[in-house]
Amino acid sequence: METILNEKVEAFKELIKKIKAYNEAINVMYWDLRTGAPEKAVDGRSEVIGMLSSEVFQLSTSNELGELLEYLSQPEQDKNLDEITRAAVKVTKKDFDQNKKIPADLYKEYVVLTSKAESVWAEAKDKSDFSLFQPYLEKIVHFNQQFAELWGYEGSKYNALLDNYEQGMTVEKLDPIFTALREDLVPLIQKVAEAKQVETSFLRKKYPKHQQEQFSKYILEEMGYDFKAGRIDETVHPFQITLNHGDVRVLTKYEENDLTVSLFSTLHEGGHAQYEQNIASELDGTPIYEGASMGIHESQSRFWENVVGRNELFWNNYYSKLTEMFPEQLKDVAVKDFYKGVNEIKPSLIRIDADELTYNLHIMLRYELEKALINGEISVDQLPALWNEKMKDYLGVEPANDGEGVLQDVHWSAGLIGYFPTYALGNIYAAQFTEQMKKELSNFDQLMLEGNLIPIKEWLDEKIHQYGKLKTPTQLLKDITGEELNAKYLIQYLTNKVNDIYNV
Amino acid sequence: METILNEKVEAFKELIKKIKAYNEAINVMYWDLRTGAPEKAVDGRSEVIGMLSSEVFQLSTSNELGELLEYLSQPEQDKNLDEITRAAVKVTKKDFDQNKKIPADLYKEYVVLTSKAESVWAEAKDKSDFSLFQPYLEKIVHFNQQFAELWGYEGSKYNALLDNYEQGMTVEKLDPIFTALREDLVPLIQKVAEAKQVETSFLRKKYPKHQQEQFSKYILEEMGYDFKAGRIDETVHPFQITLNHGDVRVLTKYEENDLTVSLFSTLHEGGHAQYEQNIASELDGTPIYEGASMGIHESQSRFWENVVGRNELFWNNYYSKLTEMFPEQLKDVAVKDFYKGVNEIKPSLIRIDADELTYNLHIMLRYELEKALINGEISVDQLPALWNEKMKDYLGVEPANDGEGVLQDVHWSAGLIGYFPTYALGNIYAAQFTEQMKKELSNFDQLMLEGNLIPIKEWLDEKIHQYGKLKTPTQLLKDITGEELNAKYLIQYLTNKVNDIYNV
Repeated sequence: METILNEKVEAFKELIKKIKAYNEAINVMYWDLRTGAPEKAVDGRSEVIGMLSSEVFQLSTSNELGELLEYLSQPEQDKNLDEITRAAVKVTKKDFDQNKKIPADLYKEYVVLTSKAESVWAEAKDKSDFSLFQPYLEKIVHFNQQFAELWGYEGSKYNALLDNYEQGMTVEKLDPIFTALREDLVPLIQKVAEAKQVETSFLRKKYPKHQQEQFSKYILEEMGYDFKAGRIDETVHPFQITLNHGDVRVLTKYEENDLTVSLFSTLHEGGHAQYEQNIASELDGTPIYEGASMGIHESQSRFWENVVGRNELFWNNYYSKLTEMFPEQLKDVAVKDFYKGVNEIKPSLIRIDADELTYNLHIMLRYELEKALINGEISVDQLPALWNEKMKDYLGVEPANDGEGVLQDVHWSAGLIGYFPTYALGNIYAAQFTEQMKKELSNFDQLMLEGNLIPIKEWLDEKIHQYGKLKTPTQLLKDITGEELNAKYLIQYLTNKVNDIYNV
Repeated sequence: METILNEKVEAFKELIKKIKAYNEAINVMYWDLRTGAPEKAVDGRSEVIGMLSSEVFQLSTSNELGELLEYLSQPEQDKNLDEITRAAVKVTKKDFDQNKKIPADLYKEYVVLTSKAESVWAEAKDKSDFSLFQPYLEKIVHFNQQFAELWGYEGSKYNALLDNYEQGMTVEKLDPIFTALREDLVPLIQKVAEAKQVETSFLRKKYPKHQQEQFSKYILEEMGYDFKAGRIDETVHPFQITLNHGDVRVLTKYEENDLTVSLFSTLHEGGHAQYEQNIASELDGTPIYEGASMGIHESQSRFWENVVGRNELFWNNYYSKLTEMFPEQLKDVAVKDFYKGVNEIKPSLIRIDADELTYNLHIMLRYELEKALINGEISVDQLPALWNEKMKDYLGVEPANDGEGVLQDVHWSAGLIGYFPTYALGNIYAAQFTEQMKKELSNFDQLMLEGNLIPIKEWLDEKIHQYGKLKTPTQLLKDITGEELNAKYLIQYLTNKVNDIYNV
């Protein structure tokens, strides 16, 4: 019996390793396409990526894998598995079962639809013409409603989608939290609007790319990023990508007329990379060698971007290094003014440009709309008007056209419904973790002031990073803070920030 | 019947496309490893490359492919195939049959041996200790003798190996040609040794990398390299790699204290890249989307590196551009002296550093030794002494140790026996092609003097590049020059060069 179990475990490990290997190849090609592959490479490369992706899909839904999972998840086998294998079986089985619930033909149709939809969306956005995209989005919503039914759910139908990106998250949990957040943040935004605005023009001087590159590398090193297991490159839309355990890459963007772009992109993606670099080696080669969830991952990027990167004490230390690199540009700017400048709060139309306060309202709006769509409470044709209405209510701004309104984000065209909430969850988690970190690292302010970021990194490694996907987001939050999800820490953090920057 | 044929053709095309796709993924990963992947990435990445390589091997030797090839190469089917498919079937079948002749277990053993042998060789070279490598090389030679027997051959046993790299090439053809070459070149080398040496110290001044990069890009553009279908990067050992039809990359090396390294590496790899970029699109996705042979490929790189890049007329034009980039370094150097400097002939111990004359003797030496090894005329333990003896006879220099002697090249440790001759063949072909080109482009000298390289590129495209592997090297040579392989043009070219540079 023992021998059969061992054989099955080995076969399972081989199979998931193979899937990982294919994904690594796909990711290397994807990275290459985003960092300077020649334009004529794209068609051929995309075909190869498509071919390997369908291999991955076939392996991930194969009968071979199904039978192994069936066997290994029986209670009498499960109890003999080590902790990591047990978790790997569980995570793999969840995905396998989800995939298997969707008939192959239906899924194929959906893949064809979304690949077409993305280019239609791009055209619609360019032309600010929602009617082009509407029929596609209607189908995408309909498919996702079908998927939700096939997967099954309790409570809101939207829960079935939400759970794909944030395990255990439900509308019933999120609604009161997002409501609390909105009720406190909307008045805060109004207060800012009435206050004296901060100076930011010095951030838009000319900052040569070469020095920005140097500062990006420097700050990653300060964060404890391991350059022997990664590299930083330039791209159009910053992201972080993990190729393997020893190759966790950061991609940032340098705008010569806006220092903040590389500064905060690097800190943000560096936060994601730090998570990936510090998952325990034992988990490597399994599907639990990943972040606990999208929301937890985002909490790490937001922590470094905002909690650290927009902290006054942090700049009290690092500003001297920055002015060394940009002596001319920053010669008349006091550190306090620099700190205020990078903390400007200003409602705007575009989510990806939003500050750390208004950002949450951008997410809320999308959450409310997609939840209502999936639950059949609104129809796709109502979206543009509802979008504009909510923008006005929450942020006091109104898009001049749908290109800068309802069409601004790619997500829906790619079928990503239920994903947006994880961005706001990242902020909420980050505030909760920070609260706890400050209790445990009583010298947190001192560390920040000294530019000694390593103890902070190590706290995150110990509490969060090392576990990968061994714990669910709920478990992780409970184990670290002893609490459930709670927006009050984020509200408190943002209120303090606004008071400090805008004296309100 | 027609329908069955079409189905088989489609199935065949799908299969070879899949093999190509896997190879593209492997090549992207390989390129990445050679251009800055972090050091901790290497182990994981190598495993992925190994995994995909064995997928490629399985597909390439699968019964599915075997049956398709069997069917499609029957005369009654073959006659209904279009020219490209027919050639693709033929080339694929040749490889398939070669692979199938080797028992799987034997091949596996060989793969294990050679992967181990490469690191043993590296250690042996470092320590200059041939005895470490000797038992491995003995096994490798023995395996290759077995392969030759399994593959079958006429005449010399070594022919079976030679044919793998240069279709149709035999010892019986090569021996008289290499003998002629040696008999004329050895006295020429002695003449040079007695003549007044040329000045080269100006080539070893400090040449900043950034300007070298600019000049490399500039010269590739002049050669007609399409940067929308490629890019140039820095690496340790220059090479060229084709990822797909729209992505043909050049990798060069910048030495700040030696201008010639990037100059001639870029021209050399640019020549390979030009070949790959200009194979007819119709051949894409098939195994004939490749150079005709290793030797023909090398003829293109050698043409640009030597025939063009070491041509006096070429520098009469491009030297002004070079001095614009390096005004200080070259201010006292006349173009004639620059031309002489880059044409220095000087016997040396290391093949990869050799000039265009002595290079051929380095190859000859290896050819004679590996031929004798495979044919059982000498044993591996005799190699170091024979190596040193031949170095003295041909080049008048003697290695101080085996690290700079018999252990200098990686090839044998990787099982590459029969490959070296293609390097010298490249020189011979290049001289034959040049002779013909000058007849057909009567303004060849004028084009060179004007820096108008595009007609030269187009001649090569038309005569050589477009055909990919549709023609064998023998056919290609015959179609272009009307002649068989003949060393006299290379001998004449080198004799003229020596007379010009050394006044002998």
